[in-house]
Amino acid sequence: MKKLFFAINLFFLALFIFPVPGICARAPVSEASEECLGCHSSLHPGIVEEWQKSRHAMITPQEAMGIKGLSLKVSAKSVPEPLLKTAVGCAECHGLRPDSHADTFTHNNLDIHVIVSPDDCAVCHTEESSQYSNNIMAHARKNLAGNTVYQELEKSIIGKPRRIEGRLEYMAADQDTGAEACYYCHGTKLEVKGLESRETFAGEMDFPRISGWPNQGAGRVNTDNSLGSCSACHARHLFSIETARKPHTCRECHLGPDVPAYKVYMSSKHGNIYSSMNKDWNFKAVPWTAGKDFNAPTCASCHISLIINTDGETISKRTHEMSSRLSWRIFGLIYAHPHPVKPDTTIIRNKSGLTLPADFDGTFASEYLVTPAQKEARTESMQNICRACHSTEWVKGHWKRFENTIQRTNADILTATNIMEEIWSRGYAKGMEHGKNPFDEPIERIWCETWLFYGNTIRFTSAMAGGGDYGVFADGRYQLSRQISQLHDWLELRKRLFPQPAPIAMFLEK
Amino acid sequence: MKKLFFAINLFFLALFIFPVPGICARAPVSEASEECLGCHSSLHPGIVEEWQKSRHAMITPQEAMGIKGLSLKVSAKSVPEPLLKTAVGCAECHGLRPDSHADTFTHNNLDIHVIVSPDDCAVCHTEESSQYSNNIMAHARKNLAGNTVYQELEKSIIGKPRRIEGRLEYMAADQDTGAEACYYCHGTKLEVKGLESRETFAGEMDFPRISGWPNQGAGRVNTDNSLGSCSACHARHLFSIETARKPHTCRECHLGPDVPAYKVYMSSKHGNIYSSMNKDWNFKAVPWTAGKDFNAPTCASCHISLIINTDGETISKRTHEMSSRLSWRIFGLIYAHPHPVKPDTTIIRNKSGLTLPADFDGTFASEYLVTPAQKEARTESMQNICRACHSTEWVKGHWKRFENTIQRTNADILTATNIMEEIWSRGYAKGMEHGKNPFDEPIERIWCETWLFYGNTIRFTSAMAGGGDYGVFADGRYQLSRQISQLHDWLELRKRLFPQPAPIAMFLEK
Amino acid sequence: MKKLFFAINLFFLALFIFPVPGICARAPVSEASEECLGCHSSLHPGIVEEWQKSRHAMITPQEAMGIKGLSLKVSAKSVPEPLLKTAVGCAECHGLRPDSHADTFTHNNLDIHVIVSPDDCAVCHTEESSQYSNNIMAHARKNLAGNTVYQELEKSIIGKPRRIEGRLEYMAADQDTGAEACYYCHGTKLEVKGLESRETFAGEMDFPRISGWPNQGAGRVNTDNSLGSCSACHARHLFSIETARKPHTCRECHLGPDVPAYKVYMSSKHGNIYSSMNKDWNFKAVPWTAGKDFNAPTCASCHISLIINTDGETISKRTHEMSSRLSWRIFGLIYAHPHPVKPDTTIIRNKSGLTLPADFDGTFASEYLVTPAQKEARTESMQNICRACHSTEWVKGHWKRFENTIQRTNADILTATNIMEEIWSRGYAKGMEHGKNPFDEPIERIWCETWLFYGNTIRFTSAMAGGGDYGVFADGRYQLSRQISQLHDWLELRKRLFPQPAPIAMFLEK
Repeated sequence: MKKLFFAINLFFLALFIFPVPGICARAPVSEASEECLGCHSSLHPGIVEEWQKSRHAMITPQEAMGIKGLSLKVSAKSVPEPLLKTAVGCAECHGLRPDSHADTFTHNNLDIHVIVSPDDCAVCHTEESSQYSNNIMAHARKNLAGNTVYQELEKSIIGKPRRIEGRLEYMAADQDTGAEACYYCHGTKLEVKGLESRETFAGEMDFPRISGWPNQGAGRVNTDNSLGSCSACHARHLFSIETARKPHTCRECHLGPDVPAYKVYMSSKHGNIYSSMNKDWNFKAVPWTAGKDFNAPTCASCHISLIINTDGETISKRTHEMSSRLSWRIFGLIYAHPHPVKPDTTIIRNKSGLTLPADFDGTFASEYLVTPAQKEARTESMQNICRACHSTEWVKGHWKRFENTIQRTNADILTATNIMEEIWSRGYAKGMEHGKNPFDEPIERIWCETWLFYGNTIRFTSAMAGGGDYGVFADGRYQLSRQISQLHDWLELRKRLFPQPAPIAMFLEK
Repeated sequence: MKKLFFAINLFFLALFIFPVPGICARAPVSEASEECLGCHSSLHPGIVEEWQKSRHAMITPQEAMGIKGLSLKVSAKSVPEPLLKTAVGCAECHGLRPDSHADTFTHNNLDIHVIVSPDDCAVCHTEESSQYSNNIMAHARKNLAGNTVYQELEKSIIGKPRRIEGRLEYMAADQDTGAEACYYCHGTKLEVKGLESRETFAGEMDFPRISGWPNQGAGRVNTDNSLGSCSACHARHLFSIETARKPHTCRECHLGPDVPAYKVYMSSKHGNIYSSMNKDWNFKAVPWTAGKDFNAPTCASCHISLIINTDGETISKRTHEMSSRLSWRIFGLIYAHPHPVKPDTTIIRNKSGLTLPADFDGTFASEYLVTPAQKEARTESMQNICRACHSTEWVKGHWKRFENTIQRTNADILTATNIMEEIWSRGYAKGMEHGKNPFDEPIERIWCETWLFYGNTIRFTSAMAGGGDYGVFADGRYQLSRQISQLHDWLELRKRLFPQPAPIAMFLEK
Repeated sequence: MKKLFFAINLFFLALFIFPVPGICARAPVSEASEECLGCHSSLHPGIVEEWQKSRHAMITPQEAMGIKGLSLKVSAKSVPEPLLKTAVGCAECHGLRPDSHADTFTHNNLDIHVIVSPDDCAVCHTEESSQYSNNIMAHARKNLAGNTVYQELEKSIIGKPRRIEGRLEYMAADQDTGAEACYYCHGTKLEVKGLESRETFAGEMDFPRISGWPNQGAGRVNTDNSLGSCSACHARHLFSIETARKPHTCRECHLGPDVPAYKVYMSSKHGNIYSSMNKDWNFKAVPWTAGKDFNAPTCASCHISLIINTDGETISKRTHEMSSRLSWRIFGLIYAHPHPVKPDTTIIRNKSGLTLPADFDGTFASEYLVTPAQKEARTESMQNICRACHSTEWVKGHWKRFENTIQRTNADILTATNIMEEIWSRGYAKGMEHGKNPFDEPIERIWCETWLFYGNTIRFTSAMAGGGDYGVFADGRYQLSRQISQLHDWLELRKRLFPQPAPIAMFLEK
């Protein structure tokens, strides 16, 4: 008998060491959530089973708050009593703060809302939510939709083309196209458009109609007016730190060619090591120990996660204000520039009065951008992470190249922009000075691609010390130089064919 | 002693729980197959060892037929007696139906054939084979090779370029190029070209020479005249449901930019979750339980697999006639159109008499396409799968955008086609109205790409509710609008440079 | 008590069967390395922990040399006594051959060097190091930097553009750009630029400043004048055969569109099987058994690894001179050509005296390239690997297509080049005959892409029997034919617009 007991013990010990998916400890579920599960486990097995595998189903907030030191994940100082002793289930999240949500409706006698927002998550994850609200990504919707210059670019890409008097013009896009294109990542505005009655297996029921839904964009405007969507990265009902730490999550929006972080990363040495060896790494450990839990950084390692060394000393603090660690913004608008100070970039004005962080001649709108001292502090905090695996000499050598590449790509884009400005000033194409969209003609696109695609891609390969091919033959220097030559050739051909083009004045008179 | 016994038991129990590759139960092997293995296990260890790991090596058809309920994989009502009690080995498949195969030859006193066809697999997997024969993919070869319009496109891509009298023309491609290019996926025609004698380690032997071999194209014409290749998806000798359920299999042909399913999927939230978490999923379970076995769909989940919920209720039936669940065909020819009713699309005629499902003005060849009622039924069957994880509101919102995108992309391609038709009618390029290939001139390619690459890619991102970047900057709306502007600009420049181009009449007279 | 003892045994047995990352046997560490670890395990946990997981930390050279047969990894006949009985640790590698290294400096009373070179690794891995020195990759730096024609191409891509007298010219690139672009893969030249004093936690210390650092390029010139970097493939301090055998390592440099090996492989059937099933394979076994350890080849399987069959017979010997198994060089310069005999390709002269393996008319510089007999022997050694999984008929059919594709792509590129030469000879663009860079004008780029991108990509899909889409719509035949048509159209338009272009003579007079 004892032997049996012993063997069973051993068996469970083995299970503990080699966890088997599907067998897991479970926290007590609230009565309200049990009721949800009663129907929805059959109706939406995908969601329910995923939640069952989540940490939210396995531990109560009270237990989670009892964890000491750096492993603590619940940053709230206190959590409302009714939530403390049950799993974080359906009713707990979808029933939170009902008065703040425009989409709250009565469903099976409970006041619930469809959209769970960062302000809901903040009840337990206060610091993360607060940091994220200062992150530039939380403002991604307004930063695009509220910027008059970018709106011209948006219109030229997703707008409806129309041929008018020998000219092709783009009219504003319909909302559904916007939601699926730019605002898939930037975030839609969720608005309740009344209730809708629907026949269900349990009889007729009312549900809110929400325009802009579905969406998990990083800068989504929620039904409680909060900004962002935690499920953009902590996907669906697993809310997993593992998913968020893997680069595939970032891929959804940072793929390219405009912000090619994912494909550059995967082609770098870091990405190589990740791809080959991540099966042996621990993506759930909090804090995350460099070298022990992982042997090459993922996006999260450098930009978000709490990293310690094997002595338990903090290398890098957790932050959900990712932009606070960035010295340069390598996404050229139209030049790489010191990072904006505030997450709302619609306040920026360059010296020409445009809502751009740099002028077309390369002058930065410095008053809205981090100072040299701030840049240095941000660089130092990033380099500190590099040094967990690399020598100081290595890091300095890498950074010298990165700064050089910022200068070189900006210089090349200035060359391209000078040619473009000559094209405009000679009237071969019609830009802002003619009161026209500066991004919609084919030759303007040749110019756009120098900064929007190739300058950006080159800088990403530089920042990540790799992705060599992306920096050269794939969306890199080969393409950048080709575009500059095309701009030049196009202008020279026009000068030869049409020595007397329509001067600007002519367009202005129209 | 008892302790040892007990411990050993426990050890094997552990093995059972944590299966170790390489240790597996084995079904009895027929004498004929044993003889094959005698030589081939040394000669072709790659194939033989792979087969050893396969289910075909582990279970007899009789045992497989004894499985009850939804787990049953052998859909044949009866299997010939000689096959019932041994593993499905070399001789069983390569020796099936010898009289039906033109490539049957005598090898070591056995009548065997090289090519195992869907009609061979049908001996056990009757339903799957029958369904697949009605799938549009089974007809992929004829649908390309037998369509006069598509043949012009094919010739302009893989044909041999020749400069004739100031014009560049493309002549038909050689067969090997075709087999490696278009027909790698569409399937080659396998034809026996006699026997060939070869020196082997066992002396001189005869082997059939088969033109068109090797090939695993989805619409391959086999030596028994059946269509398709099961190994296109159930790769090589593992015949694994796991491989077929993973998206990498579909990648071989659905990569893009013409049918960019794989890259769009991998960049979507579904693809993110798959990439991050599939290590914990069960890809072998039949039936496949949503939420429990997997937490995000792969290609197979929505298009093929038998899916149940955690109550054991069927959400979606297995089908190998994948096209039967599709309302729209989002692959533009040249517009997205209601899916063809019959898998043989060479019978389709548009109102201009061309073998196209739509006219250049966007009118559908409706008589050959599914009716609105059929479309709705197909939509409903697909939405049913979505609802395993998503609310009705979510699904409706998603579908509204998808239908909108079908309309918008078709409208934009009509704009592009109208410009192209003006170019042809003014004689700046030579199309079908001049008796010339409408796809081979550079400006015609600018037009082709609007529907063949960018319209398609945008629709795939819409259908999969993600892959945001592919719908915008990577092969998406940015490129679509750029191409339309290029078409426009090219025409306007020609009108200015050559106000009196050669009218159509001139070409026709030639 | 016995039961406990027994259970503990069983527990460790289980650990042995299911190895847990982080718990590993350890070889004794030398006193010198212990001293390194004393500080660096806190300072650089990333490196130290990775090394702890490496084979170098687990086994001494003496033990490793005791391994019999094909599993032996240490190819040195003898290893210096002081290294024999300790783990291969920090001091062992970074302290090797101090007199040979220009970067040797005194650090904590030890003479150590930053850069560990192939000549250091040769102390134990003699054969591999020697083979690699004959591999064309070891000469990658010189083969680019020392080739006058390629230098023009390099300058046109990464050089600084400048507008001079109506012409756009490219000046030589700065060193940092080169190190980050072309020489990331081809390798930088590492040169010691003196010592630098730095404040550290242990007081002020001197460190060498090394220009060209960091770099792990395949053809790096090291501080001991040896060529190459083992860590290019055996990444960082895990030195893992597993990493080197996985295709992600090759991706860093062979991604495309110029050498698109990775993306073609991943889209092929081999890549599909790898992606779906490699989780079940054994990437550490030496030798590597086809079928048992892996079911589809990775890059290493065909090009490097020691492969045996299940009878223990060698299918393919290990070689680090990868080029020795290649008959054709499918990387077109500007045509695919028989592989160069010697790894230093700067010695090659075509009949026009240029440093190219072929003339513009397609004639090979045969004297520098493998003979037909050598080509056949190389083909046979490669086909031998194919036959581990494929029938002779399969292999012959595949190879016939591959040879056909070499001819067809070369023929198409000759068509493109003939048009380009007419453009030059008529003076519409300025090439070598005018003393100008033949790669920097937009129309020259249209021509470059025919051989540098599309011809190459097509050949890679052919060689790997797959990646169908890459051979057609993605960087394949669609693009190749489009570029040829563009060249033709561009020339015809110029002939019409400018019937009397500047003849060559005019440029030469300048």
